[in-house]
Amino acid sequence: MKREDLTEKLLDIKREKGWSWKHICEKIGGYSEVLIVGAILGQMKLTKPQAANAGELFGLSKAEVAMLNEVPMRGTGTPMPPTDPLIYRFYEMVMVNGPAWKALIEEEFGDGIMSAIDFDMAMERVANPKGDRVKITMSGKFLPYKYYGASGNVPEYGFKEGE
Amino acid sequence: MKREDLTEKLLDIKREKGWSWKHICEKIGGYSEVLIVGAILGQMKLTKPQAANAGELFGLSKAEVAMLNEVPMRGTGTPMPPTDPLIYRFYEMVMVNGPAWKALIEEEFGDGIMSAIDFDMAMERVANPKGDRVKITMSGKFLPYKYYGASGNVPEYGFKEGE
Amino acid sequence: MKREDLTEKLLDIKREKGWSWKHICEKIGGYSEVLIVGAILGQMKLTKPQAANAGELFGLSKAEVAMLNEVPMRGTGTPMPPTDPLIYRFYEMVMVNGPAWKALIEEEFGDGIMSAIDFDMAMERVANPKGDRVKITMSGKFLPYKYYGASGNVPEYGFKEGE
Amino acid sequence: MKREDLTEKLLDIKREKGWSWKHICEKIGGYSEVLIVGAILGQMKLTKPQAANAGELFGLSKAEVAMLNEVPMRGTGTPMPPTDPLIYRFYEMVMVNGPAWKALIEEEFGDGIMSAIDFDMAMERVANPKGDRVKITMSGKFLPYKYYGASGNVPEYGFKEGE
Amino acid sequence: MKREDLTEKLLDIKREKGWSWKHICEKIGGYSEVLIVGAILGQMKLTKPQAANAGELFGLSKAEVAMLNEVPMRGTGTPMPPTDPLIYRFYEMVMVNGPAWKALIEEEFGDGIMSAIDFDMAMERVANPKGDRVKITMSGKFLPYKYYGASGNVPEYGFKEGE
Amino acid sequence: MKREDLTEKLLDIKREKGWSWKHICEKIGGYSEVLIVGAILGQMKLTKPQAANAGELFGLSKAEVAMLNEVPMRGTGTPMPPTDPLIYRFYEMVMVNGPAWKALIEEEFGDGIMSAIDFDMAMERVANPKGDRVKITMSGKFLPYKYYGASGNVPEYGFKEGE
Amino acid sequence: MKREDLTEKLLDIKREKGWSWKHICEKIGGYSEVLIVGAILGQMKLTKPQAANAGELFGLSKAEVAMLNEVPMRGTGTPMPPTDPLIYRFYEMVMVNGPAWKALIEEEFGDGIMSAIDFDMAMERVANPKGDRVKITMSGKFLPYKYYGASGNVPEYGFKEGE
Amino acid sequence: MKREDLTEKLLDIKREKGWSWKHICEKIGGYSEVLIVGAILGQMKLTKPQAANAGELFGLSKAEVAMLNEVPMRGTGTPMPPTDPLIYRFYEMVMVNGPAWKALIEEEFGDGIMSAIDFDMAMERVANPKGDRVKITMSGKFLPYKYYGASGNVPEYGFKEGE
Amino acid sequence: MKREDLTEKLLDIKREKGWSWKHICEKIGGYSEVLIVGAILGQMKLTKPQAANAGELFGLSKAEVAMLNEVPMRGTGTPMPPTDPLIYRFYEMVMVNGPAWKALIEEEFGDGIMSAIDFDMAMERVANPKGDRVKITMSGKFLPYKYYGASGNVPEYGFKEGE
Amino acid sequence: MKREDLTEKLLDIKREKGWSWKHICEKIGGYSEVLIVGAILGQMKLTKPQAANAGELFGLSKAEVAMLNEVPMRGTGTPMPPTDPLIYRFYEMVMVNGPAWKALIEEEFGDGIMSAIDFDMAMERVANPKGDRVKITMSGKFLPYKYYGASGNVPEYGFKEGE
Repeated sequence: MKREDLTEKLLDIKREKGWSWKHICEKIGGYSEVLIVGAILGQMKLTKPQAANAGELFGLSKAEVAMLNEVPMRGTGTPMPPTDPLIYRFYEMVMVNGPAWKALIEEEFGDGIMSAIDFDMAMERVANPKGDRVKITMSGKFLPYKYYGASGNVPEYGFKEGE
Repeated sequence: MKREDLTEKLLDIKREKGWSWKHICEKIGGYSEVLIVGAILGQMKLTKPQAANAGELFGLSKAEVAMLNEVPMRGTGTPMPPTDPLIYRFYEMVMVNGPAWKALIEEEFGDGIMSAIDFDMAMERVANPKGDRVKITMSGKFLPYKYYGASGNVPEYGFKEGE
Repeated sequence: MKREDLTEKLLDIKREKGWSWKHICEKIGGYSEVLIVGAILGQMKLTKPQAANAGELFGLSKAEVAMLNEVPMRGTGTPMPPTDPLIYRFYEMVMVNGPAWKALIEEEFGDGIMSAIDFDMAMERVANPKGDRVKITMSGKFLPYKYYGASGNVPEYGFKEGE
Repeated sequence: MKREDLTEKLLDIKREKGWSWKHICEKIGGYSEVLIVGAILGQMKLTKPQAANAGELFGLSKAEVAMLNEVPMRGTGTPMPPTDPLIYRFYEMVMVNGPAWKALIEEEFGDGIMSAIDFDMAMERVANPKGDRVKITMSGKFLPYKYYGASGNVPEYGFKEGE
Repeated sequence: MKREDLTEKLLDIKREKGWSWKHICEKIGGYSEVLIVGAILGQMKLTKPQAANAGELFGLSKAEVAMLNEVPMRGTGTPMPPTDPLIYRFYEMVMVNGPAWKALIEEEFGDGIMSAIDFDMAMERVANPKGDRVKITMSGKFLPYKYYGASGNVPEYGFKEGE
Repeated sequence: MKREDLTEKLLDIKREKGWSWKHICEKIGGYSEVLIVGAILGQMKLTKPQAANAGELFGLSKAEVAMLNEVPMRGTGTPMPPTDPLIYRFYEMVMVNGPAWKALIEEEFGDGIMSAIDFDMAMERVANPKGDRVKITMSGKFLPYKYYGASGNVPEYGFKEGE
Repeated sequence: MKREDLTEKLLDIKREKGWSWKHICEKIGGYSEVLIVGAILGQMKLTKPQAANAGELFGLSKAEVAMLNEVPMRGTGTPMPPTDPLIYRFYEMVMVNGPAWKALIEEEFGDGIMSAIDFDMAMERVANPKGDRVKITMSGKFLPYKYYGASGNVPEYGFKEGE
Repeated sequence: MKREDLTEKLLDIKREKGWSWKHICEKIGGYSEVLIVGAILGQMKLTKPQAANAGELFGLSKAEVAMLNEVPMRGTGTPMPPTDPLIYRFYEMVMVNGPAWKALIEEEFGDGIMSAIDFDMAMERVANPKGDRVKITMSGKFLPYKYYGASGNVPEYGFKEGE
Repeated sequence: MKREDLTEKLLDIKREKGWSWKHICEKIGGYSEVLIVGAILGQMKLTKPQAANAGELFGLSKAEVAMLNEVPMRGTGTPMPPTDPLIYRFYEMVMVNGPAWKALIEEEFGDGIMSAIDFDMAMERVANPKGDRVKITMSGKFLPYKYYGASGNVPEYGFKEGE
Repeated sequence: MKREDLTEKLLDIKREKGWSWKHICEKIGGYSEVLIVGAILGQMKLTKPQAANAGELFGLSKAEVAMLNEVPMRGTGTPMPPTDPLIYRFYEMVMVNGPAWKALIEEEFGDGIMSAIDFDMAMERVANPKGDRVKITMSGKFLPYKYYGASGNVPEYGFKEGE
């Protein structure tokens, strides 16, 4: 069994039962919908209690429940560049705005990155008379590049922001 | 003169003068820093008054000012997949979370996309005892796929959300 | 079940029954043939009534009907660059004429794009003594790039066309 | 001198003079703007009289005028997939709709293609209260695949449409 | 059923029966061997009478015969660049000689292409004491680029060859 | 000096002088136009007498003449897949017809290839009331795959055609 | 049945029987081990007597024996660049040394190639106190580029080596 | 001035002066040689005092010193897959061992990554009678994937290691 | 049976039994966990005794045990660039630091590489109040490039380090 | 100065002087021609005495001589797959024969590779009445994969050939 086979099975059941994602997320519980849907689609892991909930909801075998509790090989479900227009628009934002984001984050925080691991996000619908908008709020921990000495430890006069 | 040559010239001046991005954005004025820095880096266009401000600040020729008022060939400055870690992390978010975003946006809004054109964003620093965080808030207009009849107009019993 | 498996099944039935696309589109009804054929080929979604019509015509299960009402992962059916000559010719038009289209649309409308989402098209045969022609008429909403201030709102002296 | 160097020079002059594309097309004359702008951008050829007009307008050398009368190595100016959002949207249309176009054209015309060579197009602005639209009308000659016998000539009971 | 599955089935039968391509082409009849073999390999379409012949020869179902009468999604069977040495050599000819062919065809015919659609070819063996040679004769219709005015029609003083 | 710089120089002179390819080929002499144009474009080598002729015609330095007598790094001038429509059509022929050519050549000659090295071609214009045609005749030596024994020599009961 | 399915079956039998490649090559007989192993792995063809031997050894059907006698679509079994370290090292040799090989072969032989078709090789183990070495001896026929006149024949004062 | 131009200049000076990397690192001081050499090669940033040291050593302008203090666009100097054998071997280690590293790190630490940002390394030579060895010691902070609730905060019964 | 099918089977059993990697490695014994897990995942080979242990643990057939004792086609399990964040971080280290590693290793050892074959590594967890760290220690034999004379042997005044 | 600029300069001088590679190799001395030509083409390093010889021969500056003594960034001069037919043929050999080489080397030597670093080769012309042949003899050290225990040392009952 591959994770993508399990995903296909779960989507088949969702379709047959006529469940919404909202319904599935409520039954599994505890996390943001982005994470739970991500786990069903084979990109995230569920905790053991969540996987047990999913097992009950979908009628899964012990091995299938165990698989939902495993960290998947991430990123395998999305061709890059994305062919689907909805996902492509996010890719385009990164391509067009990436250099400006880099310049501004580095001016504010110094050398480093915004983590894609210690990272959370929320999505909401914002009513607007000209057409509703998708609002996304995300926050990621800033991780400074570690500058270190020959010993592997940070040297005495190490990196200071803005320096 | 290519846009990338102008970008290189502007960055050389920035370096020689020791200006920050904040300083440049204040002098050009009127827009989010993301857009103004994007324009300096060759991904966005400045309005005529902004381009004039930039021309005064950087000491540009008439043709260089005109170029800043042109829509550039976007996306040429970023290799994809991004080689720079800071930009790559955003790419990874799209690759890993894209399918879940698609599922949730379509369940909420129906068939369509979040626009990458009618789109705004803001970035801010959020203090945090475990390490400050980069917070990004973005909102894009939801654009429903147009479903139309043979005449090119939307047919009588057209697309309704959730249908 | 994957969407491409459903597509394969539908094409098998079409072949066995000897149906034309015209016949299928009439039975499903309501939309342009481009959209309905697109849905059968796994690139578009049908509304619930249309999917029900398709289900009756092809003798589909409840889950298969539900799948036709889902937004598919678009773009997965076409290798790019297209290997098929008919599709490649359109790709070539974009590659060769794209820069000129960009220049002319931006001169007329300002910074923005022609939407590929709020978009309709019609195809017709035009008799011609030197050989009939395929005539394609398409129209897409022009979406101006949103230029916004630090607050995320459009600033006072915002973008004006041609400026 | 490469064609792209000439393009860069022409765009520099356009910028310095503050000319619009409309102005340039009127001065060169005779063809659709799509073709003339395409020639300036290095994708099309101008006739000798048109190239002479361009030479006068831009103040070009004899060799530069001759280059405008040459067929360029087409398609070199556009990265594929296009990184620029305006051009990408057309690429996406082909990727998403290509299979449906293929099915419908072949059902109507038989085996063959719509020519991208014997091909014309026009672009116009259509006012619309919900936002103006870009309207594109294109027509290409249908070219049937030649089915031939061992001698290289079409055999007696050759291909008939719909057969 | 996919076209490649049908190809695999036909090749299995060919192998079991010990038939040569010559034999198969004679039984199907009417066209050049290049086209008939191309159809068996999933790159060309057979006419209805030819498909019926093939059906009888291979013992095919009605749907399989119908599939042979369909225009396939061409080009899917050949990885590019070709990994097989025999096919690669042709690819190499195009890569190495392409620019010279372009220069010579355009000098002789003006701006346009040699059609790959209205195109025929024949292959023969030429005895040679130093080693027999493969002789290929191909002819394609020259298609001039259409130069047109704003109305979509060819303007008064249109394109003349060599101009 | 790179070969592409020399090509650019030669094309500049050709443009300034208003020479045709035919004229250049006559002056250099001795070979097919395909080869001589190929050499000017950096894909073929000229013999010493031919290079001397070219040197006289174009007014070249000794080193430039020597470079025309060198074997170039072939294939560097053509992006693959070709972006230019004229060259792409040949690429498409290989992609679509390659498998059939392989099947037919192997049935006729056995295991091997048609050489792209010991290879000649001629191009001519064939008048045709429906539109003139480009006729290409090419012949390449058939090279059988060498089947050999452990010693590196062909073993006693070696490969026989058709076996 | 695809050639790769047959390869998989043959390897399964090899594994179950515990046969070495040496054993298989002896049973099939007549050719270098490189060729016979290549045929089992789907890259070479066996003669009819060899295929019969293989059929007896592995217990194959008539169609499977026939498939071993067919020329396969070569090169499909190796991802390029090779991911396997053993194969990658050969790829690296070509990448790093290719330009020097080209220079030296052309200086010695003139314009042409070393054939990869009329080509043989042998591999042997050479004992060495610092670690045994793999010794490879290969020889390929030098094929001179054919330089020809307009008629397709080699012209009077044709190509001479070193000229 | 681009960062790669500065790198080229610094390497030219290093070559002319005959300096070793060790010498340069001592003069710039404070950090591991991996970081300082990385900065000279355009992949890392130097602190202001270090950049000043570099400026004195190499005789740089104020703008060049400022550039060494900027965060570069990382990863632009290495083609991937690496063509250079020394760098390729590390790439190969990741390709071959990556899945095992993933399995073992996740079993030990739970879902997350080893940071490539908060990361240090040291390289040393280890004498060995069979041939000296390169010893690399690296340590990176383990960053657990953040699992969060709808509010963006970690939910009450959040992720626990091994769960 | 393909190696990836065996991997899938082994992972299914691991999941059903609820075994940890530690448990599996203890049962198979003798090697570093990196190697044993690598073998289970299809990247390494087990010795015969180890494969026998694995066969007993997982209940494998004789052919499956034999397959574990075979050298696999390495590198097929990891898309490159890696899509999984954990593996990507290692890829990024190589891309960003590769040129510096090359400079330092060559200055210390001369021309050559650190072997990825005669190579060992260990991974351990290092407790750290700011977050535990993954520590990796690896050592690879330095292999000097062989510089040799025309005879294939190292010439008299061969390569000396630092020369 | 980049290595490729130095290569271009050296080739210009070679062309102007009319030197053969043989002449250059004799003047530089000591190594196989493959290595010396490789160094001139930017793929290998010369020892200090050899670089001094080259400096004298070509009239190089001190920095240029120093550059010839540096290890270059290998592999940057050859596009892969190679576009030049001579180099491509070697690439094809690896692609087609790679799997068989892997099978035979591993059966003879066990798990490991033939080194591309501790590697030598010689090329010679072999007269042959059917056409002279290029004979290449190469030998590379076999490097066994190191199988090691948790301590990083080879465990007691380590890897034995054939096991």
